[in-house]
Amino acid sequence: MAVVLTKVDQVTDGLFRALRVAPTAVPRGRPMYRGIVQLIDDGIASGALAPGHRLPAERELARALKVARATVVSAYRELESRGLVRGYVGRGTFVAAQPDSGTPFAWRGKISTAAIESTDGTLREIMRHAADAAVVSLAAGTPALDLFPVDSFQAATDYVLGRHSAVTWGHAPTEGLLSVRETFAARFGGDPDEVLVIAGAQQGLELLTRCLIDRGDAVIVDRPGYLGALQSFRTAGARVIGWDFLRASIDELEDLILRYRPKLLYTNPTFQNPTGVTLPIRTRRELIELARRYRLPIVEDETYRELSFGAAVPPSLYDLDEDGTVVIRVNSFSKVLAPGLRLGWITAPRTIVDQLATMKQQSDPHTQNLVQLVIARLIDVGVFDRHLAVLRTEHKRRRDHMVTQLARSTAPGALRFTVPDGGLFLWCRLRQTTAASAVQSYALSRGVFLITGEPFYRDGGGAHEIRLCFTNVLPAVATKACSVIGEALRRCGETSDEAGLQRIV
Amino acid sequence: MAVVLTKVDQVTDGLFRALRVAPTAVPRGRPMYRGIVQLIDDGIASGALAPGHRLPAERELARALKVARATVVSAYRELESRGLVRGYVGRGTFVAAQPDSGTPFAWRGKISTAAIESTDGTLREIMRHAADAAVVSLAAGTPALDLFPVDSFQAATDYVLGRHSAVTWGHAPTEGLLSVRETFAARFGGDPDEVLVIAGAQQGLELLTRCLIDRGDAVIVDRPGYLGALQSFRTAGARVIGWDFLRASIDELEDLILRYRPKLLYTNPTFQNPTGVTLPIRTRRELIELARRYRLPIVEDETYRELSFGAAVPPSLYDLDEDGTVVIRVNSFSKVLAPGLRLGWITAPRTIVDQLATMKQQSDPHTQNLVQLVIARLIDVGVFDRHLAVLRTEHKRRRDHMVTQLARSTAPGALRFTVPDGGLFLWCRLRQTTAASAVQSYALSRGVFLITGEPFYRDGGGAHEIRLCFTNVLPAVATKACSVIGEALRRCGETSDEAGLQRIV
Repeated sequence: MAVVLTKVDQVTDGLFRALRVAPTAVPRGRPMYRGIVQLIDDGIASGALAPGHRLPAERELARALKVARATVVSAYRELESRGLVRGYVGRGTFVAAQPDSGTPFAWRGKISTAAIESTDGTLREIMRHAADAAVVSLAAGTPALDLFPVDSFQAATDYVLGRHSAVTWGHAPTEGLLSVRETFAARFGGDPDEVLVIAGAQQGLELLTRCLIDRGDAVIVDRPGYLGALQSFRTAGARVIGWDFLRASIDELEDLILRYRPKLLYTNPTFQNPTGVTLPIRTRRELIELARRYRLPIVEDETYRELSFGAAVPPSLYDLDEDGTVVIRVNSFSKVLAPGLRLGWITAPRTIVDQLATMKQQSDPHTQNLVQLVIARLIDVGVFDRHLAVLRTEHKRRRDHMVTQLARSTAPGALRFTVPDGGLFLWCRLRQTTAASAVQSYALSRGVFLITGEPFYRDGGGAHEIRLCFTNVLPAVATKACSVIGEALRRCGETSDEAGLQRIV
Repeated sequence: MAVVLTKVDQVTDGLFRALRVAPTAVPRGRPMYRGIVQLIDDGIASGALAPGHRLPAERELARALKVARATVVSAYRELESRGLVRGYVGRGTFVAAQPDSGTPFAWRGKISTAAIESTDGTLREIMRHAADAAVVSLAAGTPALDLFPVDSFQAATDYVLGRHSAVTWGHAPTEGLLSVRETFAARFGGDPDEVLVIAGAQQGLELLTRCLIDRGDAVIVDRPGYLGALQSFRTAGARVIGWDFLRASIDELEDLILRYRPKLLYTNPTFQNPTGVTLPIRTRRELIELARRYRLPIVEDETYRELSFGAAVPPSLYDLDEDGTVVIRVNSFSKVLAPGLRLGWITAPRTIVDQLATMKQQSDPHTQNLVQLVIARLIDVGVFDRHLAVLRTEHKRRRDHMVTQLARSTAPGALRFTVPDGGLFLWCRLRQTTAASAVQSYALSRGVFLITGEPFYRDGGGAHEIRLCFTNVLPAVATKACSVIGEALRRCGETSDEAGLQRIV
């Protein structure tokens, strides 16, 4: 074939050489851009244009073909829409590596940056295993659900449907039903106007993240700290700075504030997730003082507050912040009633409640009415507080049982933990030679799911720590689970990280 | 006071002149930066440093004071944390205009860009008025809730609590309970793996936005179109491009695709919100063909599909997309059962369901179990379909009633609409001399809330349109509401936009 090339730039030259066609021979379709699309499409299909082949700049190709630049722009856009080429700002347009030949549609190319970055499925995995009857899960933080007051719940539901049926079915205010906000305020503090009803603490953290965090902002978070909070902050593009929660040094915190100028501090000061530790009153006062001095909002996760086994718990940061200006408190019924209910609340200054509600309407115009009304009813008639007393007693019993069983089934030093005074978790340190991930894999292969320390750090920590929820399994099941954990520790105990993984996985 | 100035730059010089203190006389606190903070703080408090006063560059001030630059950096950061000064990249640090003297905490300065941009409270306002017993709301799109099958719902709740109590309280998979996904798939199409359970269509739109949209991406949306979708896309920083829904020209759509290279098309093709119009089968086929050609994902909102008054409805885009690759269908029980339940579902290719679930876990680890199980039960036992038949009959009756009443209470030409064959809305055009906002204000002052066209456009349209939901009020109430609307039209009918606003508000 006689190829007559006009004078074009090197890349354009290359295109026509590869396609073995002269610019003047390109079919003039109607519309013209379709001819160009066809030409390049055929070139890719025949292999003449290999993946990575750089296409001419739009201007150059337009000149070579004697068409308007807009025509080439349209052609390139269509090719890109079809996944055949990909443009990079400042670099040019290239034949795509993998035109999805089998599928008509390349979904991967459609996913947003935030979604692609958000690949961590830890929470989902916890949800899945928690719902799997074939697996004993010590991973999810769940109270003793076998003690859930089913009859009282059913009676409250009947009451609500009998009395408030119209309210139940209709739309409701984004911030929550007023009567429910009043009940929550009376029982847990704050003014009804300062209460925002949410579908669980995780929704609250996500709303707070969206309201307070811009990409690149720093946030200070307990280290180790709640994995769901870490995940929300990271997906929002925040720089997550860890504050050593077990040391809880105010000097360290002040240094971090000065160095990173954070947008907020997220902490879970009472029966902390994952460590089970409670910050003492002195540290709490210093935290508030520091937050006021540096005008640093504190997001206080008080999810575990009501779960003390008897010892008095220091006042919350929210209560210590007497002016009510620097602390936003997040709370949930997941750990004191049942996670399946999906109900929580935030207590915060009105301006923040208002801002959060404006964000909330976009993803959730309002929280389900029935569950709001039923739980408010359980609080009003005293069922909630009676149930809390039941949980505290039983949780303590289960804690003691698991501590005993772990001592029985593990070698001394293989598993170290501080016995917590409340909450749901044992935070266990393994030997430095034991990889938590190997223990997790082995235990799962024997039907026991536990969670390693890594998701609570996200910066390389946690490789030798595991978190066990001691509240949600009956003692007989806990006994078996502890024996599996003991076995896992023995199997993985003498290995280093890598070796452990290699041997077990 | 004898002021001895060392040689520093002009701005630094100015600072010390204003403060009437020599650099050498600045108190050396421990830590040193506190002395600087104190100095400037006092200067601001005394008025010596006025709002807008530019502080020296950190380096210059450090040189003048003979301290490390880091010391000045720390001082400026603390001052900024306290809201006393504000730094602008490339311009310098300035005394803040309004140190919040009364409040110890300046929340406004803490709010993220996205939250500040997201000031539209239309959905919240709709929720509030819908929940207000003193207001007749024709704004919220709500089915006839007075016909809700309360007894069947209560029976289904009893059944679920009796049989599936453990499932109800515990954690559940993020994507929804398997049995529920099976029921939804069987009744509404798709494979159970292709169903994602959500807390209403709005959550689905928000998840899709977060999964598919990067800041700056273009999206094509029905114009007019659902305000909640517009809001989600805008908050995500998308460029929202309107496609004229009533013309529904495929050529226009192709032009928009070529010009804007959109990330997705959002459309609500059946009994559309707000127009009530249904796209014909030919347009639907062309839409699919176009989407495949340009590899453009279609988000199909099928919220109103089941609400036909009798006429056959063309197949959904989801069903026409036989390979099941380009359409993501969003659905909800809000318009067919009750919005207060907060339940919906998405049907989409598995990869998308998976990606959506990974995003969902962050704001909502799973949807409430009880409502999932109860609604699946209502579908399984046939209550759902019987209720749909009841709604269709009654909704048609209420449509006819409202059409009659509007004709009676308004002058010819004051209110024009196409009588819809299904759905919940009358989309009414006013005279060009009638401002919808004035009509809205007047009606609200008489206890009737309706929504104007503006939130459905967001680009200046809708000033002479209103949307009325005809399904959610009893005929006697509708009669009164229509008479208020007639009065409002008479009051506002002869005025231009501005004059109307001035006269009424």
